Amino acid sequence: MAKILIAYYSRSGNTKKLAEAVRQGAAAVAGAEVICKAVGDVQAKDLLDYDGIMIGSPVYYGSMAWEVKKLFDESVAFHGKLSGKVGGAFSTSANLAGGNETTILDILNAMLIHGMVIRGCATGDHYGAVGINDPDKRATDQGAMFGKLVAELAVKLHG
Amino acid sequence: MAKILIAYYSRSGNTKKLAEAVRQGAAAVAGAEVICKAVGDVQAKDLLDYDGIMIGSPVYYGSMAWEVKKLFDESVAFHGKLSGKVGGAFSTSANLAGGNETTILDILNAMLIHGMVIRGCATGDHYGAVGINDPDKRATDQGAMFGKLVAELAVKLHG
Amino acid sequence: MAKILIAYYSRSGNTKKLAEAVRQGAAAVAGAEVICKAVGDVQAKDLLDYDGIMIGSPVYYGSMAWEVKKLFDESVAFHGKLSGKVGGAFSTSANLAGGNETTILDILNAMLIHGMVIRGCATGDHYGAVGINDPDKRATDQGAMFGKLVAELAVKLHG
Amino acid sequence: MAKILIAYYSRSGNTKKLAEAVRQGAAAVAGAEVICKAVGDVQAKDLLDYDGIMIGSPVYYGSMAWEVKKLFDESVAFHGKLSGKVGGAFSTSANLAGGNETTILDILNAMLIHGMVIRGCATGDHYGAVGINDPDKRATDQGAMFGKLVAELAVKLHG
Repeated sequence: MAKILIAYYSRSGNTKKLAEAVRQGAAAVAGAEVICKAVGDVQAKDLLDYDGIMIGSPVYYGSMAWEVKKLFDESVAFHGKLSGKVGGAFSTSANLAGGNETTILDILNAMLIHGMVIRGCATGDHYGAVGINDPDKRATDQGAMFGKLVAELAVKLHG
Repeated sequence: MAKILIAYYSRSGNTKKLAEAVRQGAAAVAGAEVICKAVGDVQAKDLLDYDGIMIGSPVYYGSMAWEVKKLFDESVAFHGKLSGKVGGAFSTSANLAGGNETTILDILNAMLIHGMVIRGCATGDHYGAVGINDPDKRATDQGAMFGKLVAELAVKLHG
Repeated sequence: MAKILIAYYSRSGNTKKLAEAVRQGAAAVAGAEVICKAVGDVQAKDLLDYDGIMIGSPVYYGSMAWEVKKLFDESVAFHGKLSGKVGGAFSTSANLAGGNETTILDILNAMLIHGMVIRGCATGDHYGAVGINDPDKRATDQGAMFGKLVAELAVKLHG
Repeated sequence: MAKILIAYYSRSGNTKKLAEAVRQGAAAVAGAEVICKAVGDVQAKDLLDYDGIMIGSPVYYGSMAWEVKKLFDESVAFHGKLSGKVGGAFSTSANLAGGNETTILDILNAMLIHGMVIRGCATGDHYGAVGINDPDKRATDQGAMFGKLVAELAVKLHG
């Protein structure tokens, strides 16, 4: 089994809803064991336990919420130990062109610096799933697709 | 008068339509003289003639079309001479989260490397105006707002 | 007078040293009144008091330290009120290609979302001043140049 | 065998030199068959023949040279068919903080939009190998390490 963590930060519930869609997409992959948690319930050392890690954040000033960034900053204690794990990102924002892509890429950059493996999607949302406000069906479908793609890659590399 | 150039690349007409909205927003600013051209009709040396330069591109693989990039690459012949001019960017794409922001930031990065002055917008599209497919009223309103903001800054600094 | 705030986060002293170089460059500009503070001594509401704001951060996983991000996240209480102010960014990292540019652009993106005005530099470090470890003369010279450029723009627009 | 293409654009010879280091690192991986070509000798349809694709460009205004972007733009004819292939990027520039990271990320973004799989490196250059001017030993070592990492991933996924 490949163990997958989906961690999100959500005040309004929008990112939590998108995380749930990502979880459903990942959980449907054979060989994937998926856990979905609020980022406040995840400690940096917990990241070591997973083969795949997907992080979701609302868009605050074009990048991840500081509560999410804090988890990455604290993960420096384990730098090098996440290398080769599979990653993914998703975000929700109030506006169409309000920083969704930069927030997702902010998370993906942090994962690349950890030496993690990430992937894009040739259709729909390319860098990671994006929701505008309360995620609609388009957004949750994208979330499920990304959850599936990332879980499949984690199973292939670590299952 | 501050001279403003709006240059766009457009095959489908979508980016051209957004360029027209940007032009209208800029032209409404007192003290701004605005010209709107296809990027194929602009040579690198022409950029020297303007106080403000706004560039629009469709989203091709997350960044500006090569025809637009060619203009920037050729502008190296005048490197340093665009310093202090005012810039802005806009883009259109087929998808919501398909690379609009990264395309705009790709253009803005090139402008920063020229030493140009850029600005964001606190409401709506933050980095530059974005259209999805045929730009709707939301998109053309954003285009007009950005055209106005960038022209006002060009007038203030160079008018 | 244009009031300029330089705010930095620094554990090792490297970003503080670069902040000091930025401060000297800004303070040499006629019409600029410059204050340099640790980010922990700045509250979001304080940002309203300045015409120009330069923020420095070490590179942690490719973006600003969470302590700096927290200031931006809290500044949402004043969203729209920073529009038109002048911004700039600088960073220090342990490695040459370890995330310096993405950290600076992370800060600049946040400033664009506030509607702020930023600028690049045609020579040397293009997006903002970068130091590797203990900033050497090259880095402090770049810091002073950026401090000067941003302060001059703040004086021109708000002085 | 996993087939790996390394394609570069180089006028001065600097990016070609870094490409050669990448090639050596990749060629040392058991199960990898590596070809290194100038981008002008690669057509978009050729990309279909490889399991791993690494692209190198000089830094021109913060992103890939237009000659490299043209290859990506033309690859739209095969959109969807590169999904799951492994990618990587490298760049050389004249300056330390002159756009190396944004150029590499520009290439990686294009690969993500194709649905490709990429990875970072926990040590040294995080997003891809970077050279300043004529690549020194540090840069060629980074190139070789990235060549090895990307080739290993291509072998694991497609060998």
